[in-house]
Amino acid sequence: MVEAGGSAFDIGMRLAADPADSARFDAQLDGAWTFGGVIHGGYLLAVAAHALSTLLARVARHPDPFSISAYYLAPVRPGPVWLRVEAIRIGRSVSTGSVSVFQADENGLAVERLRALASFGDLARLSDERRVVAPPARLPTPPQCVPLTSFVAGTELFSQVDVRLDPAAAGWLSGRPSGEAFSRGWFRLADARPADPLLLLLALDCLPATLFEAGVSGYAPTLELTAHIRARPSPGWLTISQSTRNSSGGYLEEDAEIWDSSGHLVAQSRQLARAPRS
Amino acid sequence: MVEAGGSAFDIGMRLAADPADSARFDAQLDGAWTFGGVIHGGYLLAVAAHALSTLLARVARHPDPFSISAYYLAPVRPGPVWLRVEAIRIGRSVSTGSVSVFQADENGLAVERLRALASFGDLARLSDERRVVAPPARLPTPPQCVPLTSFVAGTELFSQVDVRLDPAAAGWLSGRPSGEAFSRGWFRLADARPADPLLLLLALDCLPATLFEAGVSGYAPTLELTAHIRARPSPGWLTISQSTRNSSGGYLEEDAEIWDSSGHLVAQSRQLARAPRS
Repeated sequence: MVEAGGSAFDIGMRLAADPADSARFDAQLDGAWTFGGVIHGGYLLAVAAHALSTLLARVARHPDPFSISAYYLAPVRPGPVWLRVEAIRIGRSVSTGSVSVFQADENGLAVERLRALASFGDLARLSDERRVVAPPARLPTPPQCVPLTSFVAGTELFSQVDVRLDPAAAGWLSGRPSGEAFSRGWFRLADARPADPLLLLLALDCLPATLFEAGVSGYAPTLELTAHIRARPSPGWLTISQSTRNSSGGYLEEDAEIWDSSGHLVAQSRQLARAPRS
Repeated sequence: MVEAGGSAFDIGMRLAADPADSARFDAQLDGAWTFGGVIHGGYLLAVAAHALSTLLARVARHPDPFSISAYYLAPVRPGPVWLRVEAIRIGRSVSTGSVSVFQADENGLAVERLRALASFGDLARLSDERRVVAPPARLPTPPQCVPLTSFVAGTELFSQVDVRLDPAAAGWLSGRPSGEAFSRGWFRLADARPADPLLLLLALDCLPATLFEAGVSGYAPTLELTAHIRARPSPGWLTISQSTRNSSGGYLEEDAEIWDSSGHLVAQSRQLARAPRS
């Protein structure tokens, strides 16, 4: 197991502060975090959250994303990007901010690629109260599941993450989808670095599309994704369950839930995506 | 039935454009749309979406909210507010923008009370394709349900809307909650004006809190709410179903789904709220 700090994920989260502009960060996004040639949306969200975390930890001791809503404006390629952060409201238990990710286009012109609003707080200060509890999804052990790496070519992301699909959600891989729009599996980093809130943001968008098991193939680009981080995750494998209730008019929602190794719900997300045209 | 235009809701949606500043609108928020003395969050979201709709319909023929994510920064009182809109990206099928609602504090200082990001498009241009369909919640007919007006005092909002609770979700009203965190009922405006996307934004946050049926009372203020409008609603009663999967650490999510009278899913939302302290 790699300790936090030395993992490829930690290197991928590195930001350079701008000494002349406290609202700006620079980052180099590595091709290792791509899916289909563009920077993966969950990874980009984690980078954006990291910039806002840096600001809100400094001004309000609110380092953890409680809720973040990202609007995906244009794809990001590997290479340099810069981020602009804004503290909108500083509160006692949560503070709210905005973050934008920019990348230059082929003419050197700045293009905003992602904008997010988010509320941050301190997960370590949450109470232990549990009134309503979502029981973890049940699935076979990781060795009994289907490693995704061996099936997916050309997606560098899957060299960084270790995803094991529940065989019940892997019918599409052998051309026999169940017809039900869901996805379910285990997740950890390939180097087994323990999860933290930023990694949860990546994990929320790493399973195969729910529509695959419904018999629909093709890429479903995210318009908007809102993630709620509900607790600090324990070390070990994460359990992820995704489902879609409605795909119509060319759009679908995809919901994800993540439990940590002690069975606590640690993250939820919903995204609105454009359905494949096929 | 009141036609669109003459309804109290239409009057409540009125915005004054600023001839000197195309990014600014002014509005007078009436005390009729309050809940517990402050402007209701769903109504405020509809006002904000209306301002962005006005901008994006003009610059991109994208009048309808597809996705809107609102961060609630501070309560709004009845009286004057102003809104600032920004077009972030104009696209072919969707455009993305930002909107802020400001109200002066007791010293006359501008305070940002709500900020939202949103993607707008044209619901009339969506395809008829339906791949995955969420079946409507089943509940007794409106006359067999429990009108909410007669039970809730001091909440002006419930003179504007006609909410009929499924008796199965109304145990808390007689001190016998079922223990399950959900809410379910019918919704229309008191004057029966037909629903449209802006009214759906209001309706998504109008049912009693899901925690009431779980035996928890008290007010759960919204931190963030993201709504997806999935289709233009048919006239008639709306069916609304709300549920909570997880309430822990002092926060809960609340999911809502709305079907129109022809049984189509027309809206979904999820909010993160602070759990009552009690």
